[in-house]
Amino acid sequence: MSNGTPLPTHKDKPLFTPGPLTTSLPVKLAMLHDAGSWHWEFNAKVLAIRDKLLALAGVSRAGGFDSILLQGSGTFGVESVFQSCVPGNGKVAVLSNGAYGERMVLMLQRARIDHVVLRTAENIPNDPAALDALLAADPAVTHVAAVHCETTTGIINPIEALGRVARTHRRTYIVDAMSSFGAYPIDFAAGAIDYLISSANKCIEGVPGFCFVICRRAVLDATAGWARSLSLDLLDQLKGFEKNGQFRYTPPTHSVLAFERALVELDMEGGIAGRAARYQDNHRTLVAAMKRIGLLGYLPDGVQGHIITSFIYPRHPKFDWTEFYRRVAEKGFLLYPGKISQADTFRVGNIGRLFPSDMKAVVNAIAEALQEMGVTSTE
Amino acid sequence: MSNGTPLPTHKDKPLFTPGPLTTSLPVKLAMLHDAGSWHWEFNAKVLAIRDKLLALAGVSRAGGFDSILLQGSGTFGVESVFQSCVPGNGKVAVLSNGAYGERMVLMLQRARIDHVVLRTAENIPNDPAALDALLAADPAVTHVAAVHCETTTGIINPIEALGRVARTHRRTYIVDAMSSFGAYPIDFAAGAIDYLISSANKCIEGVPGFCFVICRRAVLDATAGWARSLSLDLLDQLKGFEKNGQFRYTPPTHSVLAFERALVELDMEGGIAGRAARYQDNHRTLVAAMKRIGLLGYLPDGVQGHIITSFIYPRHPKFDWTEFYRRVAEKGFLLYPGKISQADTFRVGNIGRLFPSDMKAVVNAIAEALQEMGVTSTE
Repeated sequence: MSNGTPLPTHKDKPLFTPGPLTTSLPVKLAMLHDAGSWHWEFNAKVLAIRDKLLALAGVSRAGGFDSILLQGSGTFGVESVFQSCVPGNGKVAVLSNGAYGERMVLMLQRARIDHVVLRTAENIPNDPAALDALLAADPAVTHVAAVHCETTTGIINPIEALGRVARTHRRTYIVDAMSSFGAYPIDFAAGAIDYLISSANKCIEGVPGFCFVICRRAVLDATAGWARSLSLDLLDQLKGFEKNGQFRYTPPTHSVLAFERALVELDMEGGIAGRAARYQDNHRTLVAAMKRIGLLGYLPDGVQGHIITSFIYPRHPKFDWTEFYRRVAEKGFLLYPGKISQADTFRVGNIGRLFPSDMKAVVNAIAEALQEMGVTSTE
Repeated sequence: MSNGTPLPTHKDKPLFTPGPLTTSLPVKLAMLHDAGSWHWEFNAKVLAIRDKLLALAGVSRAGGFDSILLQGSGTFGVESVFQSCVPGNGKVAVLSNGAYGERMVLMLQRARIDHVVLRTAENIPNDPAALDALLAADPAVTHVAAVHCETTTGIINPIEALGRVARTHRRTYIVDAMSSFGAYPIDFAAGAIDYLISSANKCIEGVPGFCFVICRRAVLDATAGWARSLSLDLLDQLKGFEKNGQFRYTPPTHSVLAFERALVELDMEGGIAGRAARYQDNHRTLVAAMKRIGLLGYLPDGVQGHIITSFIYPRHPKFDWTEFYRRVAEKGFLLYPGKISQADTFRVGNIGRLFPSDMKAVVNAIAEALQEMGVTSTE
């Protein structure tokens, strides 16, 4: 075992991934405190964070919404909604065009919750008309679940159109906005969203440790007694905050302090619009530079979001992903492998504390790596 | 909302709690890095941590054990064992003498797992003879679950004697060693322990964000297909580490880096024996100083451990816990309320980066607060 991570005398490799992300130094410095999870000072911060998340979502307690922080990764948050907010005789319709939709299916299988899956190809957005037909045909479906930005490819799904369909059929609507919340405007009213799940270490640019759920209070209140898990019991978690301001179980205090700072930096950047503008700039810069070295995106322009961008492997016998990844890493940049079954791709994240100059730098490293590997022509 | 937590120009209040704890500055400084959770550098650290936990437990992979890190608080770890390692027709015997035993009961209720509870009073250790009689009488019981240090009071339960009973009856044995692992020697062989759960931010003195389970591999392997939850699927989590070295879902990378450093500091202190010696010293210093100001421990000496110490409220009409807590906090020390239903107590944690001088200082603050409140005679 090494002597522990050294002090940051070296520069960390920037992370071109969908999270954990590169965060700002002030966000990390906020973690140099040990907060008492029972103490009023910390509880006041937790409440301020919950309030701020509601404001970012454009909703309010008076308007019937609330926000809940939950320990664990974003997956724990999505599963908490299924484990505690779907009744024993419930049935979930999952819209899937990638790994995160399929992960929802796995969760429902483990929890023995009845479900049906509406799949489209990984480069085709979810289909609201197909959902409409399904809900008309299957009155047993109680809940609809969709992924906003399917990080598998970076495709953006039409969550508002899906929500209108769910509302028409009076079904509860769950949105996994893990990698989009904070960098895409999301209209809860227009989208008829009942539960939205995101995570501390995505577009808010905090560090990992917890996730959060923004939900319609009346819908959550109706779930009393449904929970199949204690740790993942969302209503109980909210009631804990309301009772004494505390997480029911030990919170990741340092991650919470980092998130408080990350929310300040989001405001400093101009909120969701400002952050979206930088990520769009990153994405455009990336795509243009990659195109110049002959690497093309996987998704059609109209559905490719500005969160993470998928590129098709160079068609060249000397291209090998593992060697390519290693070479680019040794140059100081961490890429992300593809997760797609239908195409050979790799991904470059545009989110986190990255700027257009970082996008140009990573493409330069990619070009160098390809040249070293003898992958010279990449049409 | 404030401008975010300031840089640590002020001293954090030391935490006399059972966690999160006061940690060392180097442990916190280790968090000033953004690690890629997919990258080989981070994965090598995760493996080294898993190896080190096995070594601390005195077990090995060759000897049939393995260690698993899981996102979330310690409660998530205990629940992961119930949710994924108890079959549908399983039945758990829970030994309870406090809030953490009762929390296990809540978990089993939520998961609709059959169970039976063997309770003793909060100042009486679990009773191995009663467990023996229960297991002899009820062949339906498949699992036995106990809490080593019941943090409700700080009582130490006889986990080895309980384990011998479980082994005699060939039942699977689960130990919640949340607040003891790292500061009490635990003999897996003598105690016939199948699953032991602890957390990053207890006696190893890391920061919160994840927990860990050390388990007998053959017992875990037999659980395939039993999991009721995806996030809390322990066997799947282990298989994820084995497949590619990674957490299945986003890990709290900064907490993991802090834990790596915390393990180094545990070694520097002389391992479990050295850490236990300091905590014992803290506990002795605390009890002696409290006795001098007339405050007495709740537990009999023989069963009071050195992790956290319960004290009986002063018998005085002017004593009020809330005011007392506030006054001591304003003097710069954070106490912990009691969790006991059977007696009015408060608790002082001996664990974390605290030394006998801190214990003397907190008692001085307590004495001042009582004097200010007019709680002058505390017989």
